Amino acid sequence: MAVNEVFQYSIISALMDGVASEGLPISDLVAHGDHGLGTFRYMAGEMILLDGQLYHMKSDSTVTPVDTSPASDAVSPFAMVTRFCPTTAFKAAFDDKKGLFAHLSGRFPDSRNYFLAIRIDGVFKAVTVRTASGQTRPGEGLVEVGRNQVNHTFEEPVRGSVVGFRSPEYTMGMSVAGDHFHFITEDRTRGGHVLSFGTDGDVDISAAQITKWHVELPTNDPDFTKAKLEGDKEGIAAVEG
Amino acid sequence: MAVNEVFQYSIISALMDGVASEGLPISDLVAHGDHGLGTFRYMAGEMILLDGQLYHMKSDSTVTPVDTSPASDAVSPFAMVTRFCPTTAFKAAFDDKKGLFAHLSGRFPDSRNYFLAIRIDGVFKAVTVRTASGQTRPGEGLVEVGRNQVNHTFEEPVRGSVVGFRSPEYTMGMSVAGDHFHFITEDRTRGGHVLSFGTDGDVDISAAQITKWHVELPTNDPDFTKAKLEGDKEGIAAVEG
Repeated sequence: MAVNEVFQYSIISALMDGVASEGLPISDLVAHGDHGLGTFRYMAGEMILLDGQLYHMKSDSTVTPVDTSPASDAVSPFAMVTRFCPTTAFKAAFDDKKGLFAHLSGRFPDSRNYFLAIRIDGVFKAVTVRTASGQTRPGEGLVEVGRNQVNHTFEEPVRGSVVGFRSPEYTMGMSVAGDHFHFITEDRTRGGHVLSFGTDGDVDISAAQITKWHVELPTNDPDFTKAKLEGDKEGIAAVEG
Repeated sequence: MAVNEVFQYSIISALMDGVASEGLPISDLVAHGDHGLGTFRYMAGEMILLDGQLYHMKSDSTVTPVDTSPASDAVSPFAMVTRFCPTTAFKAAFDDKKGLFAHLSGRFPDSRNYFLAIRIDGVFKAVTVRTASGQTRPGEGLVEVGRNQVNHTFEEPVRGSVVGFRSPEYTMGMSVAGDHFHFITEDRTRGGHVLSFGTDGDVDISAAQITKWHVELPTNDPDFTKAKLEGDKEGIAAVEG
């Protein structure tokens, strides 16, 4: 895949419907990109992919590097990745997601109907992340899984990286419309799905606008073929926003 | 692109919002497939692509072959194509779309959440097609354009080909959820967007299930960047169903 195209495996509605028993082998996923996020089998934990390094951030607050070779048995039931080649890089500070997107809107003024791939490196403050504990039974949907998520707020400023995407509104139900970020500390020991964050002074923000979106649907999971996939927009926004 | 993957240019909500002044050069489109459908600049007429031959079916009831070389100035503001390699081929008769999908459901029992590419060759009866006359002003939306469409019913059985797709429900707003067929007569003199059809005895039906969907968003049309793209589901179903 060329740089700055999104590869997406499955659709977010499938997670909402609890389709997470199977997934794309991680070695296949990283063939499509070096930057991204997703989840693992049974929605246990959060995935972050940066510079081609893939980490599994778990609800027990551990982070483990994931073998991305074909020998790996890790799979992802949902992921979005890109071969990230930022077209804009700048330094800025922000207090919250709204502040971040004010900066990005300045750089990408006509990007509302496109994807953005985003990476931020530096010292963050008021970072709250969640890590899903995973399904307690096969087929449990994302909203229920979210009830067992573990939230963690970094009380002190923390150095690390944020990786993610902003997807256009019309993809809701397939992608997570709006922003979707995962965070990992610089020492790669903590992280998760970003619920809120700001920065402690200027950070390095890089981004690229994306106009090509490649969706691969699961073929190895009978649960996907049977799922309703009706796309509970409010539910997705509540659990992934 | 490999066989049996869908390449889609733009999203159907963009046509709903009247985004049709620019488009993908036809030579770029046919690089992604040999089977498909779409429309042309200003939504003037209907496109059908079969066996790599591309035709422009107009509301004045003419059909013209379209130059697919890089020298062509034809563009498409919306199209779906595939490199069609049927995995199933059979003979059957049907009275309406419902009858057709009863046959297809037998061949692809778990296909509801995937795309199907479909081609049908033979003698049809009760074929009603429409051809859009096109926008009467730039930015006119598809629903308004549909008010000026020309409908034509073939009173006698007619030999020809139907090309199209069935897209999963969750793609509504981006693709045309459900079936989307274009028809052309064997002598390539008449055709259009299929509103209803049946067969005069057995016809040749071929199809393939598709699990990879590649969407390219317009970057050369300022109307796309400004469009709301809110996806009027009822409107799309009414005008494209």
